Formats: sequence, structure tokens, C-alpha cells
Amino acid sequence: MEIYLDNSATTKCFEEVGQLMTRIMCDDYGNPSSLHMKGVQAEGWLCYAKEILAGILKVKEREIFFTSGGTEADNLALVGSALGNNRRGNHLVTTAIEHPAVMQTMQYLETQGFRVTYLPVDDYGRISLEDLRKAITKETILVSIMHTNNEIGSLQPVAEAGLLIKQLNPRTLFHVDGVQGFGKFRIYPKKLHIDLLSVSGHKIHGPKGIGLLYVNERTRMKPLLFGGGQQGNLRPGTENVPGAAGLAKAAELCYASLDKDVERLYQLRKSFTDGVSRIDSVWVNGLPERESAPHVVSVSVAGIRSEVLLHALEDKGIYVSAGSACSARRPQPSATLKAIGLKKELLDSTLRFSFSIFTTQEEIKYTLQAMNEIIPMLRRYTRR
Amino acid sequence: MEIYLDNSATTKCFEEVGQLMTRIMCDDYGNPSSLHMKGVQAEGWLCYAKEILAGILKVKEREIFFTSGGTEADNLALVGSALGNNRRGNHLVTTAIEHPAVMQTMQYLETQGFRVTYLPVDDYGRISLEDLRKAITKETILVSIMHTNNEIGSLQPVAEAGLLIKQLNPRTLFHVDGVQGFGKFRIYPKKLHIDLLSVSGHKIHGPKGIGLLYVNERTRMKPLLFGGGQQGNLRPGTENVPGAAGLAKAAELCYASLDKDVERLYQLRKSFTDGVSRIDSVWVNGLPERESAPHVVSVSVAGIRSEVLLHALEDKGIYVSAGSACSARRPQPSATLKAIGLKKELLDSTLRFSFSIFTTQEEIKYTLQAMNEIIPMLRRYTRR
Repeated sequence: MEIYLDNSATTKCFEEVGQLMTRIMCDDYGNPSSLHMKGVQAEGWLCYAKEILAGILKVKEREIFFTSGGTEADNLALVGSALGNNRRGNHLVTTAIEHPAVMQTMQYLETQGFRVTYLPVDDYGRISLEDLRKAITKETILVSIMHTNNEIGSLQPVAEAGLLIKQLNPRTLFHVDGVQGFGKFRIYPKKLHIDLLSVSGHKIHGPKGIGLLYVNERTRMKPLLFGGGQQGNLRPGTENVPGAAGLAKAAELCYASLDKDVERLYQLRKSFTDGVSRIDSVWVNGLPERESAPHVVSVSVAGIRSEVLLHALEDKGIYVSAGSACSARRPQPSATLKAIGLKKELLDSTLRFSFSIFTTQEEIKYTLQAMNEIIPMLRRYTRR
Repeated sequence: MEIYLDNSATTKCFEEVGQLMTRIMCDDYGNPSSLHMKGVQAEGWLCYAKEILAGILKVKEREIFFTSGGTEADNLALVGSALGNNRRGNHLVTTAIEHPAVMQTMQYLETQGFRVTYLPVDDYGRISLEDLRKAITKETILVSIMHTNNEIGSLQPVAEAGLLIKQLNPRTLFHVDGVQGFGKFRIYPKKLHIDLLSVSGHKIHGPKGIGLLYVNERTRMKPLLFGGGQQGNLRPGTENVPGAAGLAKAAELCYASLDKDVERLYQLRKSFTDGVSRIDSVWVNGLPERESAPHVVSVSVAGIRSEVLLHALEDKGIYVSAGSACSARRPQPSATLKAIGLKKELLDSTLRFSFSIFTTQEEIKYTLQAMNEIIPMLRRYTRR
């Protein structure tokens, strides 16, 4: 029995994606910059990828830039737009619960002369639009807000934020880290006033090592990397053709049955949260049901260290995450959990369960049974 | 008939590499940062990759950093070491025939207050050690010299340069762009006094979207990207596990039969250069035989525009490159060809033929036949 409930860390790749990538790597392996047939063939795969992805986002194909993943997309969005627009101001706005790829990059930009406002969040991990309103000034060149939080699944009011930002300062750029939201929500940058949107392949059953940044064509950007002029010089380097095609194929598969899959995920989520809430001194963080993401559930288990529970669940074949996804090996208290005001004694007693379209009701049932057995047992043995 | 002679642009991926990557993407898909079994499994593939690659380079596993490719490796090497050592000086040295990933990055660094010396090359594309000696000062923090030129296959005196640099200024760092040399030569950074070495996956029958930077563990570096702390914070972002394993597997396969394969490549090269040299007003650029790389041949064909000849060869199923590999779609005269003093009228009449272990003598024979037919024919039709 192997139950993978760590889908916010990374996902199992679709078989179709693996097959497509192998075919491109071994048969259609040309360099898109080459002028001959093999290059044209490879360029065709890039066009296919941009067409699919631009279609899903309802943006132009030339507004899609492939990166090596979500981290590079976030870095390019922030550094590229900050340096590209620093004549207009030096103020940036973000939230207290961003992924390290945004948070650490903002901290880097502070060392480069930019001033950053970090918006607090409420107990459910949501910013207040009033705080956002107060933060934006004439000097604000960029606001970066994540769509879906990676640790507790909270959803930010992206639509309202986009509208507000543009009302207050039409020249302020709006970046959305869509790494956890893309593949679960329909995110339309044009409608939401988003100028920059980051997406990662491996969070949506696509390949690792590929992501994309949507860049509104009117956005002034500086590149992070320099080289052979590919992707309009904004992101040079031989394009990762199999990766781009794999990302597009994964997105295509995710969006083909999105409503049905998301509905099913919310049902799984409800079964799970109903079940864990019945266990003594166990709490689900964030807002209930449809007010949170369908696939991320943060659970605090009083009196048991998260790593202990994680390994006890692992013994039963259940794989979950302690703290945040992507830096789990660094034993630091989670900034997100602190920001939502989680009691200190629960900070290190919180696990993340994250689902995917491959997750079944049987797996949820088995997981709940396991938790009902393990938690009282561990509490007996670790009682103070 | 399909004869792919554009292997310096990119190569066909080994079937074993494609299979291994699909297996990792679809089965061993965990995030190396995850604490459970699926994470440990993924971490195991990263360890496998580092072990293989460190073994081939005879360096430590912790000196291997995965990047999204050669371009990012070059950028990280140059910007990371320049910013990491700018207290010691602001002078950088490179050559006039570097790949754009080095050249453009050097030009960027010039805008950031660094002074760059560009060493000229002789008619065969080689720098002079005397020029290098004169260039290095107390202020020189980095010298970057490519191992094998991507357009004409010239080999730089890397061993002698490494020794000289460290004699003149032991604190000057030595970066080698090994993108075209790795997989064809045994490059041992420790022996050659190389502090930083860039490698790309897709030039050695591995995947696109992955590369590595060897960083001597004593080298002070600043990161280009910020995020979740992976790879010792020098290159954060969820590791491209299938890409890293694919790169390692490709390198393993290349180095398993290196001597035999390189010997065969030199035989192919000789057959080819002997053959083209017999065609009227056709010249091979660079040094002959073993003094050049085994897989790259630059050929100037008087009186015929390279793009015309390229497409005429394409009609016969032969795929080659006009000008340089990676920016072939930008119609600019090649800086390398200019630097070797190629006559102006030949600058736009030069093709690159690049071989791989999949290239056969039959293919060379067919290509020579095609050129013997096409060149006189094209000259008749394009006579001024």
C-alpha cells in the first residue's frame, strides 16, 4: 500500500507526458534555433506548447516564456520587473506567506535598494484588501500575491486585488505566483489584471525542470540570464523542448476534466477534514471546504511532533509533508503557520496532506483509519 | 535518408536516457526535499547523478550543481563568481570567440562596473598564452576560456592557461565553458586548475533543460536565483531529478567507450575534411585533424551563401548549421569567424558540420557526394 498525499511538493507525471517527452528527446530532438527540418520540427513542439498554454490562460502565445520551473519564473517576474521599472519607483508589495522563491527574492531586492511591504494575513491565511489599499503608493512598481498557499491552501482575493491595484496605480504591475493554483483553477490574467503569472510543471503531473512565466506584452522586463537570444532574449538558452511540450500536455490533461476533478477533490477534502476533525485535539487550519484550495489540507495534531507523525504514517505507506513543501529538509518553523497566528506549541505539530486526481476515497479512508490508530498511540508514548 | 550533422546544436537523446527519465517521472517522482520514502528515492537519483558525474570529472559530489543547462551554468559561473569576489578586484578576462552565454554575460558584467579583457585568437581560433599572461593583473578575479569552440572546433590550451593563471595570481578563478568539450575529452578540473566548469546535457545525447556547474568547494559564489534552499542555496528550486539522472546516464554512456568513439570520430572527420578539401574553392577552417575537436568541422564554400547551401543539403536529407549553433535564427555575422580573420566574402558562406557517435562513414560518403553535386550546380546558378 502506497498512498501519496504530498502532491503539493510534487506529483506523479502522467504516463502520456513521459511518453511524449521520450519521443521528442529521441526522435524530434532538433534545436529550435536550427534552420533545417529537425529544427523546424522542434520549433513545432514549442509552438504546440505555447498554443495549448496560451489557450488555457487566454493570453497570447508570445506572452508565454518557458523557465526551468516555478522558482526561476518567480525570480524572473520579481527581479526582471523590478529592474525593468526602477525608474518609476522602488516600492514592492507582497504578503507574509509567500513561497521562498518570492520571499527570498524580495529580501534580495531589499539589498538592491528596493523597499518591500509585507502584507499580514488573517487567521485563515488571507490578506485584507484594506491593507493592500494602504500599501500602494505612486512609488509602487510591483505587487506579488500568491494564488493558492502551498502550506495551508488558502486562496487570496486575486480578482479583487488586481482591480484594486490598477485603480490605485494603473502602472503598478501585478504578479501572481500560480504554482499551486494552476491546474486547479481557471486563471485568466487578462481578466484578473495580472501582468505576470508563474506556473510550474511538476505540480500538475508534468515534468520537473520546467515552468513558465506569463508576461503581459506591455510589461518592461530585464532578463536574469544572458545568451544566444532565445525567447526574445528575456530567457535565453536552448529551449527545453520536451519539457515545454510535457508541461503543455500535462496542462491539457488537467484542464480537459477540470470541473469534474476539482469537484471530486473537494469531496475527498470534505471526507478527510470531517474525519480528522473528529479526532481528539486535532484541528484543520485555514477556511473550510470551498473557501480553500481543493487539494491542500493543513492539520495540527496537539502533542505530537510533526516529524514523528510523518514517519508513523510513512510506516503505513502514507506519504505526507511536515511544514512546507519545498524546504522540508531545513528544520525551520514555517513562516506561513506563524503568520496565521498558529499557537506556538502547534507550529511543530502540523502536517500537510495534499491530494491529486490520482487520490481515491479508499486512500482517504485508509489514511483516516491510520490516524485514528496512530495519534492516540503516539500520544500515550510521548506524553509529557 | 536523414543525416543529422548538427550535433553541436543538439544531439539525439540515448534511448536509455529517455527510458530512465520516464521511469523517474512516472514512478520515482518524489521531491528530494520530502522526508518520506518517495523523497528519499528521488534524493537517491540525485546522489546517483552526482556520483557518476563527480566520478567522471574526478571532483567531489558536493562540487556538482545542477542548472537548467549550459547557458545558466555559464551565467552562474560568471555572475556568481564576479559578485562573490568583487571585493578583490573588478577585472575579468575572456576570449573573443566565446559562446553568447559567456560573451553576453561578460557584456552585462561590464554594465555592472567590471572591466573585461577579450583575448584575441589566431587564424585557427586559439588564444596566445603570452596575451593571457599580459592580461592578468592583481585585479583579475576571473578568467573564462572555452574548452572547445562551438563553431570551428578549435581547442584552447586549457591546461597551460590554468597553470599560468595560478602562477600569476593564485586567487584568480578559472572558468572553463566545457559545453562542447565534455563528452569528447577527459576534463579533470583539479588537474587543470579549473575552479568552475560548465556542462550541458543535450550536447552529449542527454536531455535538454539540464546542465551542471562544477564549483571548486573553496570558491566564493553568489546565487542568481533565490528560493527554498536547495543545492546549498547556490541554485534553489526543486531539483530536476529526471534531468539530472538523464544527464548522468548520458555522460556514463559517453565515457564508457570514449577512446574508441573519439578515435572513430577523428576518422570520420579526416574522411570528411579530405573529401571537402578536394572540392574547388572550399576550405576547412581551424587546425587539421587531432589539433581540433573530433566532432566539429567548419567549411567555407566560396561564392555560395551558407543558407542556400544549407537548404540544398537539407533537400538531400542532410542537416547542418549555418554560422553558430545556438542563435542561428538571428542573421548576424559570426563573431568567431570574424575573430579568426576569415575573409569578409566567406563570412556568410560558411557551414558547420558536426558529428556524433551515431554518425557513420556511409553518411559522410553520402554527404561528400551531395556536396560534390550541389556546389558546382549552385555556383552555376548563383554566378555573379
